[in-house]
Parts: sequence; structure tokens; C-alpha cells
Amino acid sequence: MSIERVAIIGLGLLGGSLGLAIAEKLPQVRSTGFDADSAVRTRAAELGLVGTVFDSAADAVTDADLVILCVPVGAMEQAARDLAPSLPLHALVSDVGSSKQSVAKALAAALPGHTIIPAHPVAGTEKSGPDAGFASLFSHRWCILTPGDDTPAEALAELAAFWEALGATVEIMEPAHHDLVLAVTSHIPHLIAYTIVGTASDLEDVTQGEVIKYSAGGFRDFTRIAASDPTMWRDVFLNNREAVLEVLGRFTEDLSALQRAIRNGDGDALFDLFTRTRDIRRSIIEQGQDDARPDFGRKDH
Amino acid sequence: MSIERVAIIGLGLLGGSLGLAIAEKLPQVRSTGFDADSAVRTRAAELGLVGTVFDSAADAVTDADLVILCVPVGAMEQAARDLAPSLPLHALVSDVGSSKQSVAKALAAALPGHTIIPAHPVAGTEKSGPDAGFASLFSHRWCILTPGDDTPAEALAELAAFWEALGATVEIMEPAHHDLVLAVTSHIPHLIAYTIVGTASDLEDVTQGEVIKYSAGGFRDFTRIAASDPTMWRDVFLNNREAVLEVLGRFTEDLSALQRAIRNGDGDALFDLFTRTRDIRRSIIEQGQDDARPDFGRKDH
Repeated sequence: MSIERVAIIGLGLLGGSLGLAIAEKLPQVRSTGFDADSAVRTRAAELGLVGTVFDSAADAVTDADLVILCVPVGAMEQAARDLAPSLPLHALVSDVGSSKQSVAKALAAALPGHTIIPAHPVAGTEKSGPDAGFASLFSHRWCILTPGDDTPAEALAELAAFWEALGATVEIMEPAHHDLVLAVTSHIPHLIAYTIVGTASDLEDVTQGEVIKYSAGGFRDFTRIAASDPTMWRDVFLNNREAVLEVLGRFTEDLSALQRAIRNGDGDALFDLFTRTRDIRRSIIEQGQDDARPDFGRKDH
Repeated sequence: MSIERVAIIGLGLLGGSLGLAIAEKLPQVRSTGFDADSAVRTRAAELGLVGTVFDSAADAVTDADLVILCVPVGAMEQAARDLAPSLPLHALVSDVGSSKQSVAKALAAALPGHTIIPAHPVAGTEKSGPDAGFASLFSHRWCILTPGDDTPAEALAELAAFWEALGATVEIMEPAHHDLVLAVTSHIPHLIAYTIVGTASDLEDVTQGEVIKYSAGGFRDFTRIAASDPTMWRDVFLNNREAVLEVLGRFTEDLSALQRAIRNGDGDALFDLFTRTRDIRRSIIEQGQDDARPDFGRKDH
């Protein structure tokens, strides 16, 4: 691998974890970093998330071989414009955003002539900020790369090798297909979780105290997701609008059908769906994408 | 506590855990049990879930002080009718079902003249069957009792003491209010989880393999809930229909508003909701109703 210097722009959960993963898995690689928030820069330096924290994006990328933008997808274009003046011509530019068509467009507009390969490591927690990062975040997780038609094969191979060195398994995908798949597996689940947590807190006849008290019946799983970073998720929904609205349309149709089944006392329709959904869970456990302990190991038994 | 003999009808996750919890926390209490499925009876005897497994509900309750029905809420009335002939007059009858108005009605119809106090320990996992039980299931969990207007205070105190001895914290609630609170905190979250898992597996442009592969982005949390026992949950929705439809109506209204915000690019509306929902998560962690480790401790870091 010829990547020797990596610049990380944005030092929150993803950027911070990336810096720590590089230090652990690629100790020969030099990392630099920048965050638009000076408090985050100070904390990132204290925590040693990257080798050197700079006070401007331009300074951070001066001699980078690889620049990875770890900012909310709505902030990608401005972040790229800020570092453009001192971006080496040979540097490969990538990101970790959750929507890929919009990022490809934003980065192409800001950095004409540069090699850009959008990427999305499918990993994260509900925590955010520089203190939330940890080196193993990407281990045994998928990292989806969405190259364009004119992406040099060598650059693609370099970026894939980089992510694999950090413990991820790399997958190549069309940007539009990525956005649809992630709308299903990530964006809509987050939207639904945010919605039901909001609905529950707005009811007049059930107090918020009661909602919290009896959350172990299922609700608490949704609150975990609904505690994710608001700025990041606002940007995801605004930037993956079409795919999100498409999947959301399917979901609301399906929900209406179940609502009708409940109203009509159609137990068979409910039972059939509830049986079918078990198989998917089984496959997720088998493929190592989740913890098989009941209740996520919340209790030790 | 004057309860010396407890009969458990239904030996799945809840009934089995109840038997194990009694053996651990109330060793002086004798437990008997019955399950309508002979394979479950055999397994329950092998596992020692209760002191003695009987081949009929009537035999299991012959000299019980307390009978606890641990069957799906739709099976309560028949289970109660089956044991009625040999139910001692002094025996207190209770259950662990997730809807309380329907259970109160079913048990009153099947067991006229008996003291009935419906109960709902708010605890469970996505696993089901006799092998899923464990003694600490009820520890530090709420158990809601929904007595009627004519319930003797002494019987209520006995049942409360029994659940407290098993590690639960008891709360008294009106049956109708219980059904509304649990519709929010448990039933609707399950319905939504079942729906989105079904929607995801029905899409033409995204394969089931992709859904499974990239489930770590949020979807997998829903699959855990959507792996819960189909019979139990079919019965919950059919038996708590009104409260479920009411809360579902609110949820779909709220979801439509978010859909519109996404369509119109109204980032502020999204950001406001996403910020508000974080506070609820914080309270749930503070009150010990969930695990604060990011990602539920799925990874060790």
C-alpha cells in the first residue's frame, strides 16, 4: 500500500475512530486531522485521535496521500472547498457519509480534477463526538465503496486495501444502489425510531415518566437509535430524499395492511408476517452481524 | 407471605423463568406446572423448571394457593376453563399477559367467584419456549398489577409480595391505562419492527442478502424484536386492539409530518425532533432501564 499520510477532516465518532484504528492497525501511516469546532480539535489532540491536529483543513491536507471527510453529508461540499487550495494533486479523496450519490456530486463540484471515491463504512453507535471513538469500530464491518465509471482501478485497490487493513470487509456498489439499500437497512429504521420516540413523548394520557419506566417492553431499543447525532441524521434524510421516500412509501403501505388486519381481527395475516420475520433474524445472527445473546447481553445469565 | 404452592400454566419463556425464579428466590414454595404441548412438558421436567410437571392443568392446580397463567392472551380463557374443575376456592388466580382488560374479562368469565388479579411483568426477550427461561428475568423489572374494584386488599398485598420476592418492583394500575401505556412502550414498537422487517424482505430492488449484510446500520435492532413469539404477539394485537389502533393513528400522523418535512427539505423540523428524542434516551439510562454501553455492549471496547 502506498498510502503513507492520511488526513481526517471531522474528528467525531467516525473520524476519531478512524484515527485510532490507523494508529493501531497501520502504525507506519502518519495521520493528521482537523475539525471545524475548536473544542473538538482540543479534545482530539488530548485524546491523541490523530498524529497532529491542525487549525485549518488546508494545513491538515498539505502532504496527504489520502483525505477522508468525516463530516455530516450536508457539510461535505464546504469542507472540501475549504481544503481544496492545498490538496496535493495526487491525493485520493474519500469520505464516510451515509448517502453516496449526494456526496459524489458535492465532492466532484468542490474538487474538480481530483480522484474521488466515496465510501461508507457501515458501522457506528448512538454516541457522537471525539470521546466516542474507538479503534475497533470498523472490525468485521462492511465498508462500501462507490467508485465512478472513470475511477482508476489502482486508486480503488489502494482505498480497498486501506479499509481492509483497518479490519473492514470491502464491497463495491453503484451509488444509487447503495442509497436504496441503506435507506432500507439504516435510514428508515432511524426515521421510524425517531418518530415513535417523539409520538410517545407527545401523548396526553401517558406521561413521559411512564414511557421511560416501562420501556423494557420494546421501546428502549428504539430510543437507542433515536439518540443518534441529530445533525448527521438531518443531513442523511435531506441528502437521500428519493430513496428514503420510496422505502417509506412501502413501509406505510405495509403498516396500513397490518392496521386493517388488527381492526378486522385477522389473526392469520398477523401470524404469517410474524413468523416470516423470524427467519431474517436467524440469518443476521448466522452471518455474525449481531449478538445472539437474548436481550443483547443486557443481563448476564 | 402465605403462598406456599404455586401452579404455573404454560411453561415457555415466562412460565419457565417464573418457575426458576421461585426455586431460587422462594425455595420454601412448592411449584407445579402444566403446558398444553407435551413436548414442552417433557422438556420442562428435564430442565426442572417447576417442582412437578403434571399432564393436565386440573391436576397441576389441585392444591395451589396461587395459579399463574403464562399462556398467550388469546388462550387465557380456555386455559382457565380447563383448570376450573379442580381449582381450590381459596386460590388466587393471576397471569403474565401483555394486555390486561381482555385477560380480566376472560378470566372472570371462566372462573366466576374466584379472586383474580391480572398482572404483567414488563420483562422478556425475543427468545421463546422452555429452554429460554432464566431465573433473573424479573429482577429489577416492573410488574404491573391491575386489580378490580372488588379485589380484596389482602390478596393484592400477597401477590405484590410474591413478585417483590422474585426481584420485581410492583406497580398498581387501572387495566385500561395499562393497555394504553403498554401499547406505546411495547405493542406499537413490536408492530413497527415486524412491519419494517417484512417491508425490507419484500423489496424487489434490494435482495434479502443485502438487507442482512448491511443490517448493522440500524435494521438489526428491529429484527431482534421482530423475532419474538408470533402466537403471543398475534394475540396481543387482537386483544389490545383499541389502544393499539389509537397509538398507531398518532404514530402514522407523526410519520406523515416527517415525510412531508423530508419532501420539502425542512431540515429544522427534522433537527428539532432528533434533538428532543435524545433526552428520553438519557432518562431511560439514568433510571436503569437499559444498558448505557454503546451498541448494547455488542463489541467490547
